Amino acid sequence: MTYCVAIKLNAGLVFLSDSRTNAGLDQISSFRKMMVYEKAGDRFMVLLSAGNLSISQSVREILQTTQIKDEADGEPVTIWNARSMFDAARVLGAAVRHVHERDGAALKRSGVDFNVSLLFGGQIRGEGMRLFQVYSAGNFIEATSETPYFQVGESKYGKPVLDRVLTPETPLNEAAKCALVSMDSTLKSNLSVGLPLDLVVYEEGRFSTDKIVCIDEQNPYFRMLRENWGQKLREVFDSIEDPAWAGASNVPIIVPSPRSKPLKKITTVSEKLV
Amino acid sequence: MTYCVAIKLNAGLVFLSDSRTNAGLDQISSFRKMMVYEKAGDRFMVLLSAGNLSISQSVREILQTTQIKDEADGEPVTIWNARSMFDAARVLGAAVRHVHERDGAALKRSGVDFNVSLLFGGQIRGEGMRLFQVYSAGNFIEATSETPYFQVGESKYGKPVLDRVLTPETPLNEAAKCALVSMDSTLKSNLSVGLPLDLVVYEEGRFSTDKIVCIDEQNPYFRMLRENWGQKLREVFDSIEDPAWAGASNVPIIVPSPRSKPLKKITTVSEKLV
Repeated sequence: MTYCVAIKLNAGLVFLSDSRTNAGLDQISSFRKMMVYEKAGDRFMVLLSAGNLSISQSVREILQTTQIKDEADGEPVTIWNARSMFDAARVLGAAVRHVHERDGAALKRSGVDFNVSLLFGGQIRGEGMRLFQVYSAGNFIEATSETPYFQVGESKYGKPVLDRVLTPETPLNEAAKCALVSMDSTLKSNLSVGLPLDLVVYEEGRFSTDKIVCIDEQNPYFRMLRENWGQKLREVFDSIEDPAWAGASNVPIIVPSPRSKPLKKITTVSEKLV
Repeated sequence: MTYCVAIKLNAGLVFLSDSRTNAGLDQISSFRKMMVYEKAGDRFMVLLSAGNLSISQSVREILQTTQIKDEADGEPVTIWNARSMFDAARVLGAAVRHVHERDGAALKRSGVDFNVSLLFGGQIRGEGMRLFQVYSAGNFIEATSETPYFQVGESKYGKPVLDRVLTPETPLNEAAKCALVSMDSTLKSNLSVGLPLDLVVYEEGRFSTDKIVCIDEQNPYFRMLRENWGQKLREVFDSIEDPAWAGASNVPIIVPSPRSKPLKKITTVSEKLV
């Protein structure tokens, strides 16, 4: 599997991906799932991919040369000359559809779903930052201030912390920390998500970044974060009172509220089920 | 969907279930998913169910009258006379298979999977406590000290906290708190899991319990737990240093380790993909 998360904030964008791929539990490999496209001063774009590796590699391979034409005599649009991230996402969608045309039928004959999920975000001079999630059909949705992040791959273990922390006002490095905590929960729970990680932090209006880092087991910041998070989470857990029951020596703090109906016990075979 | 968790500790057993069922997002209902079977002084058993509601209701309906016979002239075994929880779990498996014989083919014709997941735990006089997870085929597995809990239904959001906290030595009320925190994360993330909850705590060797509570929105303990957990989790998150970057005014704490290969940027269309 895979876990990738991309976050759009007022201050910039954060992208984080793991690098494990697997075809069964006994065939595990490491492939990078992040691509950074940069034309300094003009555009900065990051692509994260999950799903079938042969599909996502094919999409990445043809993305730069894929063109869309809105009018017969119009200029072909590529990710390098698109005037908006929306058009760049359309080019990406076209690349996905192209791979589907080429491989979809043969995959189907082999019983393999055409399964690819992409996150594509960045900024092109002349407009604000934008972040898209592109589906297997080449269609896509855009992140808004109500939902400032997208995940692809194994998204569930790492979602609660994103929901608790992220808003468009979250500072960039705090959002990067949040993404790393989210990744930590996922790494702990799903063997098919693994190190090293690729992390990119982009500041609004820069059209370039030098904040690109590959994080492996030795990375001192990630090690500090994992240890502290695990230990402090446990301290918080311990700091919350355990439930006590009516009749116990403590205050009976776990009592049903007046309207709740307690469960009926079944005590003989003849008793009616409720 | 559903979320149920059952925990086996040295000190006893904890069972927690939500009560939401849904057939599509626009058809949400509340059904209890826990059954308590008790013959005071002799046996105490709890059944939690997830999956297709018509199947799990049918299984519950016939469970008490289901019999298995190991020898033609032997005494029929039921959940009320089984000498071990293992045999009681076999009776439950037989009930699942009976429902499959009755409904499986018709469900298949309608394109509906025969999908039911059950947790069944308790204690019968003469042996220790045991906890089983029973699958749609009527086969089952048993919890051991390495994995002292089982989940059915929407298990992912609430798994990290169980893994961080639970061991066989965990005290009963602390494990109940852990189950409630796990449920809180699940409630926050999946609309198809909902209040009220049913919680049962069983002490080893009692063959009965009065610690059965139905927890709804008004329950003071659960409200306290949800508020404190959310707030303190946020405090822990804030207490961990944000990453800083080389060149920033702070210490550059997020630096790659020597062996990690940084990601290569693509800066022109002619550049080779890595």
